[in-house]
Amino acid sequence: MNKKLKIRSIIFTLICIVLSCKEESVTKTDTTSQSEHPKLILTAQGVKDIRAQLGEIPIFDNTLQKVKEEIDAEIASGIEVPIPKDYSGGYTHSRHKRNWFALQKAGVLYQILDDEKYAKYVKDMLMQYEALYKTLPLHPKTRSYARGKLFWQCLNDSNWLVYVSQAYDCIYNYLTEEERNKLETNLFRPFADHISVDSPQFYQRVHNHSTWGNAAVGMIGLVMDDKELIDRALYGIKDLQLDTKAKDDDGGFLNKDGKAGFLANIEEPFSPDGYYNEGPYYQRYAGYPFLIFAEGLHNVKPELKIFEYKNGVLLKSINALLNLSDADGDFFPLNDGQKGMSYYNNALVTAVNISYHYGEQDPGLLGIAEKQDQVLLDDSGLAVALGIKDGKTEPFEKKSINLSDGPNGKQGGVGILRDEDLELVFKYAAQGSSHGHYDKLSYSLYENGEEVIQDYGLSRFVNIEQKGGGNYLKENKTWAKQTIAHNTVTQNETSHFKGKYEIGSQHHSDLHYFSSENENIQVVSARETNAYPGTEMLRTMAIIKDDDFEKPYLLDIMKVTSATANQYDFPFYYFGQVLQTNFEYNTPQILKPLGSKNGYQHLFVEGSGKAKDENTKFSWMNNYKFYSLTTGANANDELLFTRIGANDPEFNLRRDPALILRRKNTKNTIFVSTIESHGSYSPISESALNSKSSIKALKVVLDTEDYTAISITNINGKTKLFITANTNASKEASHNIKINDNNYQWTGSYYFK
Amino acid sequence: MNKKLKIRSIIFTLICIVLSCKEESVTKTDTTSQSEHPKLILTAQGVKDIRAQLGEIPIFDNTLQKVKEEIDAEIASGIEVPIPKDYSGGYTHSRHKRNWFALQKAGVLYQILDDEKYAKYVKDMLMQYEALYKTLPLHPKTRSYARGKLFWQCLNDSNWLVYVSQAYDCIYNYLTEEERNKLETNLFRPFADHISVDSPQFYQRVHNHSTWGNAAVGMIGLVMDDKELIDRALYGIKDLQLDTKAKDDDGGFLNKDGKAGFLANIEEPFSPDGYYNEGPYYQRYAGYPFLIFAEGLHNVKPELKIFEYKNGVLLKSINALLNLSDADGDFFPLNDGQKGMSYYNNALVTAVNISYHYGEQDPGLLGIAEKQDQVLLDDSGLAVALGIKDGKTEPFEKKSINLSDGPNGKQGGVGILRDEDLELVFKYAAQGSSHGHYDKLSYSLYENGEEVIQDYGLSRFVNIEQKGGGNYLKENKTWAKQTIAHNTVTQNETSHFKGKYEIGSQHHSDLHYFSSENENIQVVSARETNAYPGTEMLRTMAIIKDDDFEKPYLLDIMKVTSATANQYDFPFYYFGQVLQTNFEYNTPQILKPLGSKNGYQHLFVEGSGKAKDENTKFSWMNNYKFYSLTTGANANDELLFTRIGANDPEFNLRRDPALILRRKNTKNTIFVSTIESHGSYSPISESALNSKSSIKALKVVLDTEDYTAISITNINGKTKLFITANTNASKEASHNIKINDNNYQWTGSYYFK
Repeated sequence: MNKKLKIRSIIFTLICIVLSCKEESVTKTDTTSQSEHPKLILTAQGVKDIRAQLGEIPIFDNTLQKVKEEIDAEIASGIEVPIPKDYSGGYTHSRHKRNWFALQKAGVLYQILDDEKYAKYVKDMLMQYEALYKTLPLHPKTRSYARGKLFWQCLNDSNWLVYVSQAYDCIYNYLTEEERNKLETNLFRPFADHISVDSPQFYQRVHNHSTWGNAAVGMIGLVMDDKELIDRALYGIKDLQLDTKAKDDDGGFLNKDGKAGFLANIEEPFSPDGYYNEGPYYQRYAGYPFLIFAEGLHNVKPELKIFEYKNGVLLKSINALLNLSDADGDFFPLNDGQKGMSYYNNALVTAVNISYHYGEQDPGLLGIAEKQDQVLLDDSGLAVALGIKDGKTEPFEKKSINLSDGPNGKQGGVGILRDEDLELVFKYAAQGSSHGHYDKLSYSLYENGEEVIQDYGLSRFVNIEQKGGGNYLKENKTWAKQTIAHNTVTQNETSHFKGKYEIGSQHHSDLHYFSSENENIQVVSARETNAYPGTEMLRTMAIIKDDDFEKPYLLDIMKVTSATANQYDFPFYYFGQVLQTNFEYNTPQILKPLGSKNGYQHLFVEGSGKAKDENTKFSWMNNYKFYSLTTGANANDELLFTRIGANDPEFNLRRDPALILRRKNTKNTIFVSTIESHGSYSPISESALNSKSSIKALKVVLDTEDYTAISITNINGKTKLFITANTNASKEASHNIKINDNNYQWTGSYYFK
Repeated sequence: MNKKLKIRSIIFTLICIVLSCKEESVTKTDTTSQSEHPKLILTAQGVKDIRAQLGEIPIFDNTLQKVKEEIDAEIASGIEVPIPKDYSGGYTHSRHKRNWFALQKAGVLYQILDDEKYAKYVKDMLMQYEALYKTLPLHPKTRSYARGKLFWQCLNDSNWLVYVSQAYDCIYNYLTEEERNKLETNLFRPFADHISVDSPQFYQRVHNHSTWGNAAVGMIGLVMDDKELIDRALYGIKDLQLDTKAKDDDGGFLNKDGKAGFLANIEEPFSPDGYYNEGPYYQRYAGYPFLIFAEGLHNVKPELKIFEYKNGVLLKSINALLNLSDADGDFFPLNDGQKGMSYYNNALVTAVNISYHYGEQDPGLLGIAEKQDQVLLDDSGLAVALGIKDGKTEPFEKKSINLSDGPNGKQGGVGILRDEDLELVFKYAAQGSSHGHYDKLSYSLYENGEEVIQDYGLSRFVNIEQKGGGNYLKENKTWAKQTIAHNTVTQNETSHFKGKYEIGSQHHSDLHYFSSENENIQVVSARETNAYPGTEMLRTMAIIKDDDFEKPYLLDIMKVTSATANQYDFPFYYFGQVLQTNFEYNTPQILKPLGSKNGYQHLFVEGSGKAKDENTKFSWMNNYKFYSLTTGANANDELLFTRIGANDPEFNLRRDPALILRRKNTKNTIFVSTIESHGSYSPISESALNSKSSIKALKVVLDTEDYTAISITNINGKTKLFITANTNASKEASHNIKINDNNYQWTGSYYFK
């Protein structure tokens, strides 16, 4: 055991002792529960409670009915445990995956319905796995850095064990001691060993893969009451040190700082606010093992107080994750994230149920549970079902929120500003592990669940075999991760940190300020100094609600300071149809790529022009709504209409458009823009309402090291002034400046009037 | 008066005499009703009935409440009758348009609510119009072939009068005789004259514009009891002959055969099945004047039996129109049609209400009325409201339907095949007047309201001023009307009829057969011999429901016979993301247009390849559903991935993709394809279901002048045979042929087993 781990372990033991002294009753329950089954996710008391309520808890009853129908059909179709052969999407892969779900559900049905046929089904299938597993070599497919036995990668073997531990727990008492010994000796113990001590490159890390591994080992350990496995789960493999420079398939470091085990996996990736460093898509994926193992630990080892660990970060992370979704519940596709993943995913049913039951019974969580229309078939699902039945449901209200990144919350973060239907997602986080994109200070903009300014997301068709086996496509690296694929500044056609993980993973942006108290103006501001050495970017984004406008609008100030002259590209990834520009442009007869590397090779240039007036204006229409961009122009600004899809030999990329503002040979500069959503078009009445921008002029009236002041004049001639403090921006700071002979005096980060 | 018109007029008069002899009571009512007001759309008896039911007819009450709120707000904001100045979308245009609706609604409110404030509002505004109108020269904007006075085109002046006649009728009795004289002398009579005798190029035609003109003149004539105006409306301007070769703004002939007047406008464009020659989008537009004037005629001149005219074609046309919509109620965009127009349009509220009341009280119409959630505030709306209240509502079930085109139903038609969620729209109609496209034997395919294989529709953003003033864009001619923009054969890169209206308008395709009796296989087949002189195209399309397939699929057989060697291009305008092909293709570094004219200049080539196997296979994904194309391949078939958008200097075109099958240097040939919709993808569970084609092989086993036989082998190895009779395909015809030593014997158009 390395030194750090040793110390942590000692502290932890001490805490446990203190806690167990304080709450003897808990320890007692613990002792009892350890001898009873089920105890892991379902508990003996929970089963009693559930049985007492059956038939009177609609959402639970309905879920139970659906699961029963599904498993009855499985039982009718018979057990099949094929010899492992395929990659994801292939037959044997899918079959073993289907089996793990069937086992878990059948186990639960046995407990709740007290019908032996389910126990028998679980037992019979487990015995077939026992017979098969002891004969298995490594999985024949060789692509993984850590091959499993049932599946091509240990990750999926771990998935299997996380679910099957629950099944085993449910039928534990149904089996004879001899049967249990057989299963534990030939199946579970060697299975747990294979994914841990035999695959340390997979297990001994801080990574979502390892979280699955830890949970798998720990859960079967809890069921088997095997201290060694439980400790291995919590603290990692004893006395093991790995090469800190080795990398995995995705390009992430295998184990940079030697940390490992479930607790380290909670410590490292979650910020104190509950933000998960890889972003919401992977938090959702890692969420299930985090929470289901935590639930098991809570039930079997309550003295650990796992839900209070790191100031209750596990439950906080659920709140953070729910807030990282749009109005439809779809997660913002930060870093590698497939669009469409949402809080309707089963992992979120687990998260919401556990958060409700073990947290503070937030009635907003019942609102989401009602939308999900299913619950866990366990104690937490019962609590949710009872809450709904008792009419406690309230809508889950998402507000503006700032989520810090990094284990200590000191590595940047993600700020979300919400006003009416508008949602701004501003990313100033750390690299986001191997799934991170080179997108410092980038943003995306949503309106009522629709993308106004999009983040591309990943380039992958998860589980669609026809597209590269459902795995990451090479365009994920060549396009989706590159800076130009994002709504931020690309300097000299190179990505942030040269697109290198080794560099990017050492840095993060820094929050300048976040202010959401005033409903009419909410601001987030952050600084990036490492993406391009010698260049500093300070981006301040505000959502402004002004009675002279139909809807809130976005004000975006990107201040770039550089010692050298550079080319800056500043894209707007809009959707839909071009309506109007105030500049002239040419459309080429032949489309050529914008560049040859760093993502530029994937952009066709569909049009180009030069800025004409003081403001560049561009309006478009999408989904029958109108949008207008107004941006401060320099005389030499080039404007490029681009479309993704060049050098894409297998049509892996979406043909999405962008308008790119290009500023060449410039040192310090400022990009100031507003984006308005306004009006609507009805193809039924064929009427266009409020189809034009309400902004007449946008002007930088002051731009110094300390302050940037922007005036926004609307079409009625009314002018508002926004001043942001670029240096001392604390809430308490008082400012007094003169612009054009007018004095402006205020306290706080910004001025707006 | 020309000869034809004279004869028709005489026959008509005779019919009227016969009818009035037969039904004296009707004539009596007529006499009564002519002296009473309101009598046009609302009737005195209708008003009594409505008042008696108020408060107990929810959908009527709700509509009334909304209209009342709207008009109360209008009254509060004051009357404004500006001096005409603008084109569509401009202020004065919009204001006068708003006024006509306000007048019509206020008139109705006065009658129903018996509240004088509404009558006063109508009177005051009409007096302002009277004061203005007599001072007006022609509208200052000069673009129209027939300028109005309130609006830039007579068409909009006519719109105004159609609505305002109703308002005048409603307050007729509220006005003094002197006031009426003033309005009729200075406003209504000169107004009606301007759009008719002063603008014969607009009025004296068979065209949707003229229908508005006729209705406007006729409706004010009915209210004023002015026989001259009524006759002018019904039969056109007396003793007027126009240049038969002159053309209008859209390129249509102004008056090719001298027909004119409302009755001719019913005669000519509607087929006996109720299909309107310009297609559903323009039928919807013309629908309102057709029906509202017909309602007026029915009420004031019941002896005309207008709803029985031409075998009741007006009401039949409503049924046809409703059947020309997809599962969401959106009209198929045949010819010039803007996507998204649907039966939720107000003109369809009129149509559905009138069809229910004056037709056979089809309970399916109540189903649509419920979806529309509003009714007309008149006798027909009352009937619908009572029907709904009495629980008579049934869903409107759309079935497969064949609609003939042409005044006598002899000019081709449109066949729609429906099975489960699949809808095939097959167009083998006549040119479709000036709004027609060069798209003989083209089709589009829908699934549950989503486009699977699209028809592009028009190139226009109706009423969106930023896009060419909301008018037709030049790409409508250069792209949307061209053959290559459609899912049919383009020969030698030229459009059907050389893209010339003079030629196209002389021809039509011919139905070969239509068969929808068998639920499991429905077939439509049609022939085109004029689009390319010397080349014959026979297209047979079937929707097949086979238990071995998840869903019904499309079988498409395009048999081309030509004396000369040609190049044939055969596109599939799919949507979404390419998944897989069984052929290799290259994607160019630089995108070039596919050609230089006839629409080809608008297509970029994104990829090209050669067919490899006996079948070319292509699969794609759209909106989380999978689709597969299987098509019979020749060794030299080229495959082109294209995208619309070349030579589009103002981004007027959508960047939609197609796969084009190109066969060069070929005389006779056959294109056989199947299109399957199958499976689904969930971005939430990330599972792909049934993502692959169920068809293993598609083979032409016989192709003679008389028969074409196609075998379809599914992935389980089962083979089905489809034989279509190419010559004698009557239902009674019996056939006996030998293919590969097997005898096939059947009676009817096709064989399938």
